[in-house]
Amino acid sequence: MELSMEKRNFYKADLRDFEFLLWEQFPKFAEILAHPRYSKCSDADISTILQRGQTFAYQHLGPSYQSSDEQGCQLIDGSVQLPREYPELWQRFQQDWGDLANDDRDDASPLPPMVMQMLLEMFMGAHPSFMTYGGFCLPSATLLERYGSALQQQLFKHKLATSQWTSCLALTEPQAGSDVSLVKTRGSRQEDGTYLLQGEKYLISAGMHDLTDNTVYFVLGRGEQSGDGTFGLSCFIVPKYWVEEDGTQGEFNHVECVALADKMGFKGCANTHLTFGKNGPCRAYLMGERENVGLLQFLTLMNQARISTGVYALGMASSAYLNALHYSSTRLQGKRFQESFNPRADRVNIIEHADVQRMLLEMKSKVEGCRALIARLTLSESYLSIYQQDVDKEQECTHHQGLMNLLTPVVKAYISDQAWRICELAIQTCGGQGYLKHTGIEQYARDIKVLSIWEGTNFIQSQDLIRDKLGMGNQSKLYRIYQQQVDATLARASDFPALKPLVEQLTLSYQHLDQCLQQVGQWVKSKQLERIPTFSTRILHLMGDVTIGWLLLDGAMAATSALTQADKKHSDAFYRGKLHSAQYFILNELPRSAFTLAVVSNDDASHTMASEQWQDLIAGVNG
Amino acid sequence: MELSMEKRNFYKADLRDFEFLLWEQFPKFAEILAHPRYSKCSDADISTILQRGQTFAYQHLGPSYQSSDEQGCQLIDGSVQLPREYPELWQRFQQDWGDLANDDRDDASPLPPMVMQMLLEMFMGAHPSFMTYGGFCLPSATLLERYGSALQQQLFKHKLATSQWTSCLALTEPQAGSDVSLVKTRGSRQEDGTYLLQGEKYLISAGMHDLTDNTVYFVLGRGEQSGDGTFGLSCFIVPKYWVEEDGTQGEFNHVECVALADKMGFKGCANTHLTFGKNGPCRAYLMGERENVGLLQFLTLMNQARISTGVYALGMASSAYLNALHYSSTRLQGKRFQESFNPRADRVNIIEHADVQRMLLEMKSKVEGCRALIARLTLSESYLSIYQQDVDKEQECTHHQGLMNLLTPVVKAYISDQAWRICELAIQTCGGQGYLKHTGIEQYARDIKVLSIWEGTNFIQSQDLIRDKLGMGNQSKLYRIYQQQVDATLARASDFPALKPLVEQLTLSYQHLDQCLQQVGQWVKSKQLERIPTFSTRILHLMGDVTIGWLLLDGAMAATSALTQADKKHSDAFYRGKLHSAQYFILNELPRSAFTLAVVSNDDASHTMASEQWQDLIAGVNG
Repeated sequence: MELSMEKRNFYKADLRDFEFLLWEQFPKFAEILAHPRYSKCSDADISTILQRGQTFAYQHLGPSYQSSDEQGCQLIDGSVQLPREYPELWQRFQQDWGDLANDDRDDASPLPPMVMQMLLEMFMGAHPSFMTYGGFCLPSATLLERYGSALQQQLFKHKLATSQWTSCLALTEPQAGSDVSLVKTRGSRQEDGTYLLQGEKYLISAGMHDLTDNTVYFVLGRGEQSGDGTFGLSCFIVPKYWVEEDGTQGEFNHVECVALADKMGFKGCANTHLTFGKNGPCRAYLMGERENVGLLQFLTLMNQARISTGVYALGMASSAYLNALHYSSTRLQGKRFQESFNPRADRVNIIEHADVQRMLLEMKSKVEGCRALIARLTLSESYLSIYQQDVDKEQECTHHQGLMNLLTPVVKAYISDQAWRICELAIQTCGGQGYLKHTGIEQYARDIKVLSIWEGTNFIQSQDLIRDKLGMGNQSKLYRIYQQQVDATLARASDFPALKPLVEQLTLSYQHLDQCLQQVGQWVKSKQLERIPTFSTRILHLMGDVTIGWLLLDGAMAATSALTQADKKHSDAFYRGKLHSAQYFILNELPRSAFTLAVVSNDDASHTMASEQWQDLIAGVNG
Repeated sequence: MELSMEKRNFYKADLRDFEFLLWEQFPKFAEILAHPRYSKCSDADISTILQRGQTFAYQHLGPSYQSSDEQGCQLIDGSVQLPREYPELWQRFQQDWGDLANDDRDDASPLPPMVMQMLLEMFMGAHPSFMTYGGFCLPSATLLERYGSALQQQLFKHKLATSQWTSCLALTEPQAGSDVSLVKTRGSRQEDGTYLLQGEKYLISAGMHDLTDNTVYFVLGRGEQSGDGTFGLSCFIVPKYWVEEDGTQGEFNHVECVALADKMGFKGCANTHLTFGKNGPCRAYLMGERENVGLLQFLTLMNQARISTGVYALGMASSAYLNALHYSSTRLQGKRFQESFNPRADRVNIIEHADVQRMLLEMKSKVEGCRALIARLTLSESYLSIYQQDVDKEQECTHHQGLMNLLTPVVKAYISDQAWRICELAIQTCGGQGYLKHTGIEQYARDIKVLSIWEGTNFIQSQDLIRDKLGMGNQSKLYRIYQQQVDATLARASDFPALKPLVEQLTLSYQHLDQCLQQVGQWVKSKQLERIPTFSTRILHLMGDVTIGWLLLDGAMAATSALTQADKKHSDAFYRGKLHSAQYFILNELPRSAFTLAVVSNDDASHTMASEQWQDLIAGVNG
């Protein structure tokens, strides 16, 4: 296919917002950096590496974003052909950034997770499809470290941590999507302790490529003796080319791609239908040599994948917003509202129009709020990185791990849903241009849509949040941790009289959230459990709104303080912009909490319709 | 380009809902049908023609929907190549449906507008891109009838009314999008009374094709002596091949396509950049031989185009919903929530899951509500079709014209915005499958996105609603007409005790709308006019919600009555489904009105940010 697009970078990053979060909104980040683990990493190093990341995103990743969407991936004679820029881009990426989080390096210290995610926001925002190929390298190295046998670690960990090989996660099967308990792939144990695998996997992202010499598949399957359901699942390590115990690379291991799915977006990411052991033996190592604990082991990967989903969403949505902002400041159209009837009034850039400002402020506040949410989660992850070896810090670890666990489904589901909305606004801001490919924004919308589905649909996230994290009520330990955080921010806010209206609205909405969770607890007591899944999506969105409101208020306090200082890091306009984000979101979006509470509280019984009624409807339409 | 898609019809229509609206929810439709104008059109004829329309949509339009998206349009040596199915499809369409609304036919009476729009919903939902080519035939025939000279009517009206030629609307220029006052195309008057046109038009839908022997462009431009601004605009009639006064077709008239824009969707609709008179003389007739009244003349076309936009949105969104419904009733995944922990519980189709039901009910209620809205508008249009020649019916005409005028921007903007949301839910309902092309839903989302932009952005619609239709307050004549309608429904509803909770919520939300409009009136009095555009999008959405709530309640009353009758047209399940739609929407969506009112009423000043702040932000990002 001929390429009609010029190679232009559409991606825009907001480095100042990163700096603001690291050094001003979350000053505790300095505590982390002071720890010996990060002794080789100064403030200046971090600024430099973020700058370098931006340059890489603008110069290398961004320019092939649109071209890879045009080319897509093709299956030719069983081999998957990626967009033509990928091999060279991979070489460069692997060389410049491949071992960034490899803890074994001698020359440099690892980066705190908070900084890592900021880099990833730029990379994933600049070229999301490309980033899927290496996306599981680090999480799977962590998985091996946690659960792999000594041999497995020795064979695979370093290769993955340095991106010499890539990793691929293979859970879904045609009959087993959201319901992984239906997985049928089987492994039969051989005398040498390895397994022979038989099965197929479906909708596997970045499931086949030749970017690296080998790919290591982490496959969810069952041992021969294992039962049905989730408790019979195991995690198999399946290299595309077998790896002998001495590390030498052996024969092709019969992992094959039989089809690619054509989809709305993310077209540079091959969506593969894979077979294991269909045309010859497919050997596997059993993770940690333990059967039936696969789902637990996969959780490590899944949690990281859920956070990454939020980061993908944020990276793209932020760039969509910044592109729309740029367009609106250069497009001359219409007069100021107050001068509508003045024939001699000048045309103004559309950024002057009230409705464009409404859209820009909604985008700005949500992008910044979502970025603060990921920063807050990765601040806790950063604490864990320095505390987890320290027996004195058990309580802190419990706190930070708890907050991470609680926020993970919110990051995944709330940010991916908001990102779609942000793209809608970014397109609308640009009018007809927003709908055209050459503006670059419509692709973000198409790419983002999968994020509410993959790595567990957003409803599954809401179930995880309400059932597993909030204990179906407002009494869970994790919710206490969350409350401590929000309460502390609200308490500090009393020192900022100018923020009083925001504090009042946040306090109110935070109460609404609590009342919704109380209602959930009531349903448990009154055995109306079926109400919970009816409202869990709405409650997750409410929790997302309150969390964003909390963190934007927190940012507004930091910005207020910065404005009083003589020696400011950034311009006054920047800090006033942070105040604006908090004010817009809290006064224009957060009041939605009363609506959610009203709907959750009412005794309406119209939430489900009987199967027969739906069937009648379907029959009426098809007939 | 090779076609990888099978030719499958994805489109699904809901004929029962049409029948319900025509014969049960709006029994006054019978009054219209009893008028001599429709003497040749019986109830049975209408059912037959709707059935025939569905068959045509399923068998001819639907099957090339996806293929036309894959092929798109190409500009080859100045000629626009459409998807290969179009010429044959056009022949068939023109033959079967081309003169449906041609009043001059002898053999059959015209169809009432209410029925016409139902047919168009199916055609536009089944293949929106294709339908753009003939979309302006009837409205421009009406335009000629209203404003054209005798000669112009004679030359063009019949050809357009019978779809022998097509019509194309050309307003936008690169520098004049939402702001048509910036249009630069110029016509200079010749001695023979025709004009020579010079100019270019941009983002013109279906702007060039060879489906018909000729295309008539209705071009917004200026006479040589005309001033700047909107009052200097004229409407030029520009045939692609000149048409002599005796009706013979003359030479090529130098309307040329210089570029096609590549876009997110609607790919079978050529998005053209046209030049007029660039490489040779381009002659034009001046509409009605009157300069400087072009914008007024175009309003006829624009109003029809705005209603059509709502119909496109409804047709596609309805099919997206019905496809998702069908999928959810066949996809086995997961157990019932109450049996989550029962290892022997059966898997159920996902339609049994509460969150899927939430999405289906949101889609169902919105689709049915939007369809009722278009039906209500076209009921008034149908009244006008029988009353407008009747001097005794002046008052009725004022009433119906007023309601149409008021509802038109709501139909355009509210339905197009809701349609995007419905597609989001339809994709989500189908999970990973929803993101794949072979499921057919993602294309609806991509196609629908333009509808919030074209024919006046949705913000422009909200300005029209609040400024021109509602008179910036709650005192306008059109609003009185609207209130009469809603009040009458609420009064009748007191006979239906089972609907009491719905009546209460609708009454409350209707008050909220009124309070928002009062607030708008207050801003006018206190000279805070700039607040109006800040909130007009939100107020339009609120008015849409209330209107949908009103019409769904109205439908619920009709369904309740039907259920008590021995001789029902449809199944009990169908009528109970109508009740469910009303209940779900009114109790789960309509309470949002309190949120809108709260935001409109608060005295927050964060709605705009100063230009310097935005500029600082842009500089910070690009730097």
